[in-house]
This record gives sequence, C-alpha cells and structure tokens, in this order.
Amino acid sequence: MNIKSFVLQKAKESKEGANVLAKLSSEQKNTALIKMAEGLEKKQKELIKENKKDIAAAQKKGLSSALIDRLTLNKKRIKEMAKGLIEVAGLPDPVGEITKMWKRPNGMTVGRMRVPIGVIGIIYESRPNVTADATSLCLKAGNAVILRGGSEAINTNKAIVKILRDAAKSQGINEGVITFLDTTEREAVMEMLKLEGIVDLIIPRGGEGLIRTVTENSRIPVLKHYKGICHVFVDRDADIKMAEEICFNAKVQRPGTCNAMETMLVDEKIAKNFLPQMLKRFKKAGVKLKGCSKTLETDASVERVKEEDFYNEYLDLILNVKIVKDMDEAMRHIAKYGSAHSDAVVTKDYQKAMRFLREVDSSAVFVNASTRLNDGYQFGLGAEIGISTDKIHARGPMGLEELTCTKFIVLGTGQLRE
Amino acid sequence: MNIKSFVLQKAKESKEGANVLAKLSSEQKNTALIKMAEGLEKKQKELIKENKKDIAAAQKKGLSSALIDRLTLNKKRIKEMAKGLIEVAGLPDPVGEITKMWKRPNGMTVGRMRVPIGVIGIIYESRPNVTADATSLCLKAGNAVILRGGSEAINTNKAIVKILRDAAKSQGINEGVITFLDTTEREAVMEMLKLEGIVDLIIPRGGEGLIRTVTENSRIPVLKHYKGICHVFVDRDADIKMAEEICFNAKVQRPGTCNAMETMLVDEKIAKNFLPQMLKRFKKAGVKLKGCSKTLETDASVERVKEEDFYNEYLDLILNVKIVKDMDEAMRHIAKYGSAHSDAVVTKDYQKAMRFLREVDSSAVFVNASTRLNDGYQFGLGAEIGISTDKIHARGPMGLEELTCTKFIVLGTGQLRE
Repeated sequence: MNIKSFVLQKAKESKEGANVLAKLSSEQKNTALIKMAEGLEKKQKELIKENKKDIAAAQKKGLSSALIDRLTLNKKRIKEMAKGLIEVAGLPDPVGEITKMWKRPNGMTVGRMRVPIGVIGIIYESRPNVTADATSLCLKAGNAVILRGGSEAINTNKAIVKILRDAAKSQGINEGVITFLDTTEREAVMEMLKLEGIVDLIIPRGGEGLIRTVTENSRIPVLKHYKGICHVFVDRDADIKMAEEICFNAKVQRPGTCNAMETMLVDEKIAKNFLPQMLKRFKKAGVKLKGCSKTLETDASVERVKEEDFYNEYLDLILNVKIVKDMDEAMRHIAKYGSAHSDAVVTKDYQKAMRFLREVDSSAVFVNASTRLNDGYQFGLGAEIGISTDKIHARGPMGLEELTCTKFIVLGTGQLRE
Repeated sequence: MNIKSFVLQKAKESKEGANVLAKLSSEQKNTALIKMAEGLEKKQKELIKENKKDIAAAQKKGLSSALIDRLTLNKKRIKEMAKGLIEVAGLPDPVGEITKMWKRPNGMTVGRMRVPIGVIGIIYESRPNVTADATSLCLKAGNAVILRGGSEAINTNKAIVKILRDAAKSQGINEGVITFLDTTEREAVMEMLKLEGIVDLIIPRGGEGLIRTVTENSRIPVLKHYKGICHVFVDRDADIKMAEEICFNAKVQRPGTCNAMETMLVDEKIAKNFLPQMLKRFKKAGVKLKGCSKTLETDASVERVKEEDFYNEYLDLILNVKIVKDMDEAMRHIAKYGSAHSDAVVTKDYQKAMRFLREVDSSAVFVNASTRLNDGYQFGLGAEIGISTDKIHARGPMGLEELTCTKFIVLGTGQLRE
C-alpha cells in the first residue's frame, strides 16, 4: 500500500472511532482509561524491552544524552503515565455539558452544549509519555486520536498504543479511537495534514521547527504552542520583597520551561532600592545577567544586553535586565519583544494592576504572581495538553474544555421563521 | 511596489490599527460606528455614482442579472447598511468581559477575560454591503480588518471604505483599523494568506469554491461556512400538524439559504398519516419532490431520488423525501449525507428528543422548531458574521463573542510555583 492510502485508511478508522466515542457515557470512558493504566503497569516489562530497542538505535545513531534521557522509559516513568490516565478518568466529563441557555421572544429556548471536536491528530517528538498523556485527554473529551510520534521512539510508542487499544477493546470500544501511524516515513505526516474533512484538528507538540513545518503544510486547523518570551515588570510601587521572590521564582525555579522569565523590566524609580540585592541573588544562583546601560551603572560586572537578546527564549539560567521609565515603556517592550505567552506585573497600585491586566495581550497576564504558574494544573483545569499561543479557539493552558467545541441546541414548541 | 510588499505594508498598517483599537473604550467604538452610518447616508450620491461604474463594467463583461443585482447599491440598501452599523453600536461590547473567575488553593484568583482576536482578513465576493457589515462587527469586537472584496465591486468598495476610514479618523482612531486591498490582483489574496503572525484570522464569505481556495492556501486559521444540507426528521410520535408547519417553513420560507431543509426524513410508522397532505402542500407551493421507493408507493407522481441527490444542497424549491425505519436510521442518514449545519426532529417523545439533541453532531440541533431559525438574530446574538461549520473556535452563528478569544488573568498576592 502506498503512504497516501495507508494514511487515508488510518484516518477513516479514526473517524469511525470518533463517531462511536462521541456517544459513550462518562463511565465507559473512565473505565477504559483505568484499564489502560492497569495495562501499562501490568506490561511494564514488555514496554521497557521495546524501549531498549529504541535506546540502542538512538545510541548507535549518536543522539545526545539529553535526547536519550527524554526517550527513556523506566518503572517510575511508566507509573507516572499510568497515574496520569487515572487522574484524567477522575476529571469531570465536559461532553454534553450545557454551558448556557436562554429564552427568545418567540418562546424557544436556545442553548450551547459541549461536544467533542472529532478526530485530533497529535504530532510529537521523542518523549513517549505523550502517547498516553495526549490520548487520555482527547479520549475523555470524546475525541479520537491519530498519533504520529518521533521515529526514534517508534518501538516504544507502538507498544504503548497496543496496550491502550487492547484496553479500549476489552471495554467494547472501537479500537479506531486510538490510531497510530506506525511508519517513520515523513511523507505520512504530510498526507495526514491534507485530510481536512476527516481530521478536525492538529496539535503539534515539540520544538518551533516542528510547529512551523506543520502550520505551513496543514489544511487542517492547527493549535500551536510557540515559544514563551515572558516578562516580569517591577513597578515603582511594588513590594520589593515580593518582587524579588516572584522574579527569582520566574527565572530560577525551572528555567527550561516556556513560562520562565527571560527579561526582567524594572521601573527606574525603584531600580536603586530593588536591583542590587536582586542581582546579587541571581548571580549567587548562577544566573548569567545581560543588562541595559542603566543596569550596568548599578553593576558594572553585568554583560551588556544586545537588542536581539530581547527576542531570545533562553530556556536557561540567562536573564535580560532592562530599566524602563514607567509602565507604559514596559508594556511597549512586552508588545514588541514578547511572544504573548505569560507576563506579570508586581505592583501595589490598583489602577496600574488593572491597566496591565487589560492591556497586555498575553495568554496569561499576572498581577503579583509568578509567570511559572501559567499551567493547566496550577490554574485548576485538572490537566493540560499544552499552552496555546494561538489567537482563536483557546489561548493559554488547554484542558478538557479546550478539547471540545459547543453546538447550539434549540428546544422549541413549533417555532417557525417568520 | 510589488504585490508582496504592497500587501505586507497594508497588513502592518492593520496590525498597528489593531493595537490601538484593542484599547479603545466602548463609547469611542460606538461613536465611530454611528459616524460611519452618518457618513454613508450623507455621501449616498457619491456612493451610487461609484457603484454605477461597477455596474457598467459588469454589464459590459456580460455578468448575470442576479450578480448585477447583488452588486447594486440604491438608497434603500445604503440605508440598510447604515442601520446595520447603528445596530452594532447598540450591542454590548464583549471586550474586557470577565467570563469566569475562580479561586485556587494557593489563594490566587484565576479568571478568563474576553480579548479581541487582532487582525481579521475578510475575503468576500460581489455584495458590497459586506464591506460595512463585516467591518462593524469586527471593530466592535476590537479587531482591525483587512478587506478584500470582489473585483467587480472595487469602485463601490473603495468608496465605502473611504467613508468608514474618514469617520474613524474624525474620532481620532488610527485609520489602519479598516484596511482595504485596493487591487484586483488575485496574487494579493495569496500573499495575505501567508502573513501568519500579522493576520490572526481569515473569514472567507462566498461560495464553496472561494472557501476551498482560501483554506487550501492559507497558513492563517480560517473560519469557514460551508454548505448546509439540512434535515427535518418527522418521528412516529410527532404532532402531525406541527411537523407539517415546520417542514413547510424549513423548505419554502426561503429555499435559497443554507439553513433550508434539503431532505425530509419520515418515520415509516407515521408516513401514511403525514405524507399525503404534506406532499400535496409542497406541490401546491411549487416544490419539486424526489422520493425514495416507499414514498413513491404513497404518491406515484413523485420522481425517484438518486443516492447522489442526498449530497445536494439545492438552494431551490426541490426536496428529497425518504421514509426511514426509525430515528436511528434517520440519525445514520444525517451523519452520512448531512453537512453538520442544521438538523431538526419533530417529536412528542421526551427521550427521543434528548437523544437527537445529544447525538446529532450539527452546528445547531432543533427539537420541534424550523431549521430556518439557525441565525444570529434569531438566536439572540444580536448580529452574525456568518454560520461556522468548523469544529473549533465557533460552530453555528458567529456574533460578537465569536470574534473574540479569552486570555487568563491572575490576581495574586505573591504566589510562586513550588
């Protein structure tokens, strides 16, 4: 079979799965998720065996140790995957929820009901836990998945998918709900991206390169999470101790994440009182600092920042520091260099807090809290499939609700169009 | 200037406009909309003069009289355009609305705030009223528009846009909020569709061909309204008189619209009592009937329906009639041949009503009401920019809310990520 018909066939199986899944009760979905978790734990030996094949191949290819670490499954990681499935089973089912109802002058009642999106294509890179994590969220929200994992994890992913499908089957659920493109051909992705009308949504999970390629080639809507160039603005009216804790947390707690701070903006009126102690603390934590010329006046040991640094997502213990005239300059800086991901202000001034909330156009805007809190669990969504930097459908952390859409429902008593 | 830099320049102006617009008060936006309405009425002579140029060119090209009618502006139509602008000014402003807020265990409050989408590209065909209608809805929701109208209406559209921009300018609003691609080069559309990162959303308004071309070539998210193959299912437990009124209204009241019924599905248990009178009434109204073999047993004068007819959006006084075994067969038919636009059941049975609502996956699902009611005004959205048949962001009629997205806002007291 050629790649084109192979992918089309898989997609059709997935569509059939989606039709079945949309009608399942919450209980059926939850039981299936729990069976999947049990399957993963029961078959961990086989999983680790298959994973070792991938690791051996990766080592032979000379892949980096960071990549091999991401690829590796062990008992602990399998337990985490299983735990994730059980947690998703415990979340409320969004499907069928009526989010709003209102009455019209002609007596009919109009409402919105949450419905699954349909078939969701997940394109991801080396981490095999995505196979179980993404699947569980999509299934719970009533969507079938077509999975396309990284070629370096193909044996591991195949084994995970087999366990998930067997569990679905054991509950009388069409296996098409979890479809795996078990080929490493790049062409398979390109064919999948053309299947508008069968596949309803694509979610790429991985680096910027992957996301760009998918977006440029897809006829299907794509939900993207691009990079996070996140800012904290320390206002002249900030509580200095709080500002220090927030900035430190935003940069240092886990610098490799998309919601970590890359540039700290400091109001010139507070710089003298705030900066020396703050910079000292950063240096002590091993943060490499790059400062504007005014910052250098405070601390001559700091490297001078270049304009292009402000566009950089370091994902590392490196920080730009810029002293600004006021909040307006800070907001202009964020609008120009930011990526509309996560931005925070630290201030005691009510009016400035409200202006910052309203005017900064990011997926999450914080007053007096760390940008590191932009996360589905932290926000109480229960789980997340990613942080969307898109401007439609969903912005910020995407939980189960964001994996649904709404349809209109009308309860009439014979209403006609006049 | 070449087309590529021309379109890029326009898009950048629009982006600047969007940045300004997002921060305007409701009052500023409403005043601008009212000034635009006044401008249209004041300058109607100039408008009609420019419109005559387009009509003359269309006649010279030998365009159909239907097309020329859609292109034509007269005093009445200009008044309607102006009225539309004033109505939109009267609608509630969705921007800044906080749709939900909740407290997290760590004490921070998380909420969702409605925000504009940004820059919206509208690609449309001959009807010049779209220029004012689409602009007013986008602006009210805080979005800048880049308009690309049909080449046959270029003089009319230019004149309308000038009036709208002058009104914006008179209120101190950046004219970039309304940007018009004043070229008839097809390449300009293609260039616009590549401007992801500047243009945030594309809404094509027109025939299926236009929408397909846009979707296939766009790197920007597209909100589509494809065709409506709409059904009414008359259940065995229907009120026969109500069923007759609803089916008649759904087919005859305005057959050229996307929410008109194309296929009537009738439960075999009610066919004998329902069909003869219903078919008589349709014939009297000039509806051409195409029936399944069982329908032909009731009325031998009906033409036999072919399978491909069920995929047809007639947009005309033509109707497929099919007798089905039960609601399950009806729902399978809708799932196979329908376009997930508007589908209705007529029944007195509570359980079947609820099943139909839940299981039929259409943008609007009706119990005991006409499919013709699938409309933004009828649903109480105030206005609509189209009926989305997409599976993400918005399904069904799109009003002002659907022209926004939400961002997360966090009100903290120093919360950090543990």
